[in-house]
Amino acid sequence: MKPTWLFHQPYQPYAYALTDTRARLVVAVERGAATTVNVHFGDRYVEALPERVSMEKSGNSHKLDYFTADVEVPTHRLKYAFEVVRELRDRSKESIWYGENAISLNPKSAGVFQLAYLANRDVYTTPEWAKKAVCYQIFPERFANGNPSLTPANSVDWESAPTPFAMFGGDLQGITDHLDYLFEEGVTLLYLTPIFKAGSNHKYDTEDYLEIDPQFGSKEDLHRLVENAHQRGIRIVLDAVFNHSGFQFGPFQDVIKRGQASPYWNWFFINGDKVDTEHVNYETFATRLRYMPKLNVANPEVEAYLLKVARYWIEEFDIDGWRLDVANEIDHVFWKRFRNTVKAAKADALIVGEVWHNSLPWLLGDEYDSVMNYVFCEAVHAFFVRRELSGREFAERITELLFMYPVQATNAMFNLLGSHDTERVLTLAGGDVNRVLQAMTFQFFYPGIPMVYYGDEVGMEGGADPDCRRGMVWETGRQNQTLREAMKVLASLKRSEPGLAAGSLHVVRADKQHLEMVREANGASRIHAAFNTGHTAW
Amino acid sequence: MKPTWLFHQPYQPYAYALTDTRARLVVAVERGAATTVNVHFGDRYVEALPERVSMEKSGNSHKLDYFTADVEVPTHRLKYAFEVVRELRDRSKESIWYGENAISLNPKSAGVFQLAYLANRDVYTTPEWAKKAVCYQIFPERFANGNPSLTPANSVDWESAPTPFAMFGGDLQGITDHLDYLFEEGVTLLYLTPIFKAGSNHKYDTEDYLEIDPQFGSKEDLHRLVENAHQRGIRIVLDAVFNHSGFQFGPFQDVIKRGQASPYWNWFFINGDKVDTEHVNYETFATRLRYMPKLNVANPEVEAYLLKVARYWIEEFDIDGWRLDVANEIDHVFWKRFRNTVKAAKADALIVGEVWHNSLPWLLGDEYDSVMNYVFCEAVHAFFVRRELSGREFAERITELLFMYPVQATNAMFNLLGSHDTERVLTLAGGDVNRVLQAMTFQFFYPGIPMVYYGDEVGMEGGADPDCRRGMVWETGRQNQTLREAMKVLASLKRSEPGLAAGSLHVVRADKQHLEMVREANGASRIHAAFNTGHTAW
Ligand SMILES: [Ca+2]
Ligand SMILES: [Ca+2]
Repeated sequence: MKPTWLFHQPYQPYAYALTDTRARLVVAVERGAATTVNVHFGDRYVEALPERVSMEKSGNSHKLDYFTADVEVPTHRLKYAFEVVRELRDRSKESIWYGENAISLNPKSAGVFQLAYLANRDVYTTPEWAKKAVCYQIFPERFANGNPSLTPANSVDWESAPTPFAMFGGDLQGITDHLDYLFEEGVTLLYLTPIFKAGSNHKYDTEDYLEIDPQFGSKEDLHRLVENAHQRGIRIVLDAVFNHSGFQFGPFQDVIKRGQASPYWNWFFINGDKVDTEHVNYETFATRLRYMPKLNVANPEVEAYLLKVARYWIEEFDIDGWRLDVANEIDHVFWKRFRNTVKAAKADALIVGEVWHNSLPWLLGDEYDSVMNYVFCEAVHAFFVRRELSGREFAERITELLFMYPVQATNAMFNLLGSHDTERVLTLAGGDVNRVLQAMTFQFFYPGIPMVYYGDEVGMEGGADPDCRRGMVWETGRQNQTLREAMKVLASLKRSEPGLAAGSLHVVRADKQHLEMVREANGASRIHAAFNTGHTAW
Repeated sequence: MKPTWLFHQPYQPYAYALTDTRARLVVAVERGAATTVNVHFGDRYVEALPERVSMEKSGNSHKLDYFTADVEVPTHRLKYAFEVVRELRDRSKESIWYGENAISLNPKSAGVFQLAYLANRDVYTTPEWAKKAVCYQIFPERFANGNPSLTPANSVDWESAPTPFAMFGGDLQGITDHLDYLFEEGVTLLYLTPIFKAGSNHKYDTEDYLEIDPQFGSKEDLHRLVENAHQRGIRIVLDAVFNHSGFQFGPFQDVIKRGQASPYWNWFFINGDKVDTEHVNYETFATRLRYMPKLNVANPEVEAYLLKVARYWIEEFDIDGWRLDVANEIDHVFWKRFRNTVKAAKADALIVGEVWHNSLPWLLGDEYDSVMNYVFCEAVHAFFVRRELSGREFAERITELLFMYPVQATNAMFNLLGSHDTERVLTLAGGDVNRVLQAMTFQFFYPGIPMVYYGDEVGMEGGADPDCRRGMVWETGRQNQTLREAMKVLASLKRSEPGLAAGSLHVVRADKQHLEMVREANGASRIHAAFNTGHTAW
């Protein structure tokens, strides 16, 4: 038997429950090797595999074709095997069987895979609303100055070039003032970088997790913002910086002052018998960032405190979820409890981790709903922005991404072209608006939540942090109206087209400079997207 | 570039923490394609990958060579990429880089994988004692009759052929009476199938989870058994049947009697407004087994009750862990809580799930320590017992098994040749003791816990259930002394040789009928095992 490369694992992202009576199965087959793939399945207590479904070829990576099928499992108990049909030289066909024991011409030798029981509590559910959401990321210090009376005395001009420490004067009232603008742009979800009391302009150095930063406003201002946003159908997600606190965080100051006598001594990781802020003898975010001491979330007091924070802003302010800073450096034990806490407070709250790389370990159903999809961002930049990939290569990368996570997570991803932590997309595109238009179109076409970084929709430019954090451009004359209008149209389609919300995605054509893809959902219009990244006509 | 198949995932079983500063990395490379594989790594906040380790080739499956390395991560934060060195036709060498972005000749394009933070609470720990343990499975009704006064009146002769309902009269006192025998055989761990109050001879139909079955004895008898076992260095694991109860279980009887008025109505899954025992309108174990109604563990009352049971027998009787019946049909939410409960009651208790297939989803660190390793059993039977595999094919299957789970689980597996649910190994071997000797030798050689089904060590035979549950043969004249002595020698080696406890495993030679393997640990003797399954000399 000529060997064929086959790949499957009887767990996520290759096998998982969609409901307690429905499972998704994925098998990867050496590219071009199979004419058809069938999955044979049945209840695990029944001798044979009575059911058969022909799998759908959903796309291919460089080396593998991906086949998927959703199967019905009324008894919750599933066993299955794959039948890969190959065409031989003489055009006759041959079936190879792939089960847990082997890849074999003999189904008995192949054995079966098992998804033993689709238990209700194990089913991964992400918010239904996420599928149609359009997200807009705001860096509050730079979006709009709605209350000059709160603006720090030493603040700089709105048009200034950002520096690491400059204050511009943006605040919560500024966001509330522009909700109609955001509504017009089609935004249905705001993600605000941190708004709690902190010394820096980015507020990732929290001083008090239970207070709004006074430069940004009051709790009343947040109430007003959330209420006004909700009236417009716009949800709000805040930024939880739980990996580390700021230097001025009360417990850390207490530890500096009182050393091991402090009741907060074990809230941090300190090497020695007192804090040495000069030599930074404590764990921090990144490498010895003295002003961001790492929190010990395994300490039950710290855990209880942070979970209280998570509940507080949902229960008291009705926020709609959390984005989690440096989420991959906090343990899984904490995040499982965090999810339980958040979902108990608001069942359809969204949980989005900041993880820049493959995030499957956090997307199995009991931690996050979503991550900041930088893997998506990098692929989109490589093709549409830097134009260093062919359409074919990009389609392969996108197909791999599509099969990297359970579909529930894919449908809730924060698909971004940039953020407060990256250069702006238009700058990376060398100012070429067309490239950004294509990237943005793809961003709204791909499953999940397109996340637009404030100002990208009006053509703002900016290099790496802090330059990517310039003051928002509000004068229409300085805004790129093409991009603004494009976003409106794309957001409108995202909300209205079921195919864009939850349809499957297929590559129709992919060559050097062309890419054509389709999304379709049962009974809905097929949505085509066609891109030409070259200089010649279609 | 000629393509090479490479496979890695930045999570278990390909990447995981061994401690909070040490990680194991595994990469699979198309067989024969690489001369060397290096892993380059460093702290994720440092620009380059300053460290390099040459990976060890640990074995191969049919298509893949497996390379492993353990890397030190003092900051807990790891990023890494693989450098696969290939020899070209002209004998020159070329490095392919494999990272999260791509497989590429250019390390920059390849990118890096990340194991972002090795958090202390996420490290998988299984009991240290498991590495050297020798387990013996007892079916109490058939092991020894130590207290004839408890023997049911309708019991049959000890030498009878088992039937589904026959009682033989075995009991706890019978086990206590034979602890010296077990000690002599080298046993350090007993796994007893259920001993709680139940109507059947196998007791998998629990009537009361908090009482000892009166045929088996009293709580005093269990105390005595555990004490006497512990005095001999023998631990005891009991069988937790939490997927379903027995028909006579108080709550189920109450539901039959009172219908929806019963406070236990939601302890089960009943379709309709009263229980119909004739048509079995409720979920059961397997297919409509009326006497085993499935328990609703998602009901907080059921969960609390079962967790109380789990604690009770540890706290009151000092048992050393639980084997979990039909473990894969209970949800992961329950098992995570179960682990927390059990480990809080006894930190080094062992948790062994009954899962017959790939069990990775339960072996990630926060559910079980181990499973009944039927995947191992099937491979060993195919090679040593049925002799339908070549040595090469078997070595490939074993290598795949070795890389199926994190090493912590592999070191705690229940590696069995048979159980109360299978035909006996000697019967499957057509009575050929030499085949069983080879299989048993391999069982003690492979990492994990060899689990001997009572009587296999004296050459008992028996077909499928119930025939595999005959009365234990105690007359030495009827025992196979070769097997008995072999087990003693193997158990003694397992306890005394560090290489067998936790050494790495390498295949030295594998062809049609030969298999030679080595296990070695740092500073310990290398242990060779050589097998010849053919009729010609070595
Ligand atoms: Ca202001
Ligand atoms: Ca008895």
